[in-house]
Amino acid sequence: MAHIELTEGLPGIRGPMVFSPETTKPLGELVQVLLTGPHTLTPAEREMIATYVSSQNDCYYCQTCHGSTAAQHLGGSDSDYELIAQIKHNYEVTPISAKMKALLAIAGKVQQGGKHVTANDVERAREQGATDKEIHDVVLIAAAFCMFNRYVDGLATWQPRDPEIYLEIGKQTAQLGYVGRDYKKPLEAIAAKHSNSKS
Amino acid sequence: MAHIELTEGLPGIRGPMVFSPETTKPLGELVQVLLTGPHTLTPAEREMIATYVSSQNDCYYCQTCHGSTAAQHLGGSDSDYELIAQIKHNYEVTPISAKMKALLAIAGKVQQGGKHVTANDVERAREQGATDKEIHDVVLIAAAFCMFNRYVDGLATWQPRDPEIYLEIGKQTAQLGYVGRDYKKPLEAIAAKHSNSKS
Repeated sequence: MAHIELTEGLPGIRGPMVFSPETTKPLGELVQVLLTGPHTLTPAEREMIATYVSSQNDCYYCQTCHGSTAAQHLGGSDSDYELIAQIKHNYEVTPISAKMKALLAIAGKVQQGGKHVTANDVERAREQGATDKEIHDVVLIAAAFCMFNRYVDGLATWQPRDPEIYLEIGKQTAQLGYVGRDYKKPLEAIAAKHSNSKS
Repeated sequence: MAHIELTEGLPGIRGPMVFSPETTKPLGELVQVLLTGPHTLTPAEREMIATYVSSQNDCYYCQTCHGSTAAQHLGGSDSDYELIAQIKHNYEVTPISAKMKALLAIAGKVQQGGKHVTANDVERAREQGATDKEIHDVVLIAAAFCMFNRYVDGLATWQPRDPEIYLEIGKQTAQLGYVGRDYKKPLEAIAAKHSNSKS
């Protein structure tokens, strides 16, 4: 049970988002700017960073949503989902670019605490062609997910384990982004289960 | 030296804020909603929560800015600054309310990680009269400062040690809030030092 009274049937951050629209607005705009739109890092790459940090913070809801969104951006095949699982486990041995590996190393340091990022970490990323904007954005994406993960877990939100739910979330988010959506609307995968359990 | 090229003479988060206006907008709006305006917790109390979390994250810039802002909201006397120092050191023995102590305990758990917050922590706060909104906002303030602290330290921003700078920041922020200000403008305490060192 969540630590405060949240609308039933809304998984993860969706409960607190509906509870507090005045903070949901800037939070949605922040994640929209960071993870969507034109950028030298693809939306899939930025979602991988969000997923990896959420995994390091052990936030089931965030790592599964953003992992599914990353996989959907890549095409949504089983092997895309497998790649995301491997990145969470050990990104150094995956077939992503050397620049992405260096950026994920920075993200992992930020997750531990800002002071863990060293000049060597940044130098490694620069050697692989990372720009100031990419380094800035990776630090802020990693920092932002240290916030989102704590928001979701710190309120003990409902985090269902049904993969269908995260498939639906990944597809929706890859297609529609984060702002201007109705998060009060129940997910089809949840509504279907509810209707099945009643019949 | 910061990990990326930032405008010289802007301390802490001000460098990255000027570097990245598109993320500064939602970040500013978030902190404005959380820490200023009408609320059952005073601005001083909400700044204390931000200060305590920043102190636990060992972010010198954030804990000193927000500590100064909290002290200014209380009146700005030496004893107000002393209270903030004591809260960082051990809030349980300070003359703040039992409700604030229970909320700071929740904030401290969020700083360690969202899953550290227990039903007992929340129950303690409720027994002291904390509402769902207060519990929600404390979790989100604590989570947000886990982001801001990592943003500031993860980029190795310039964090000067001159107390005059933080006195000026505290006075300005307590009076003007966080949004609609020109963060590119040099602080007087920094401009004065720069002019003295030249003369």
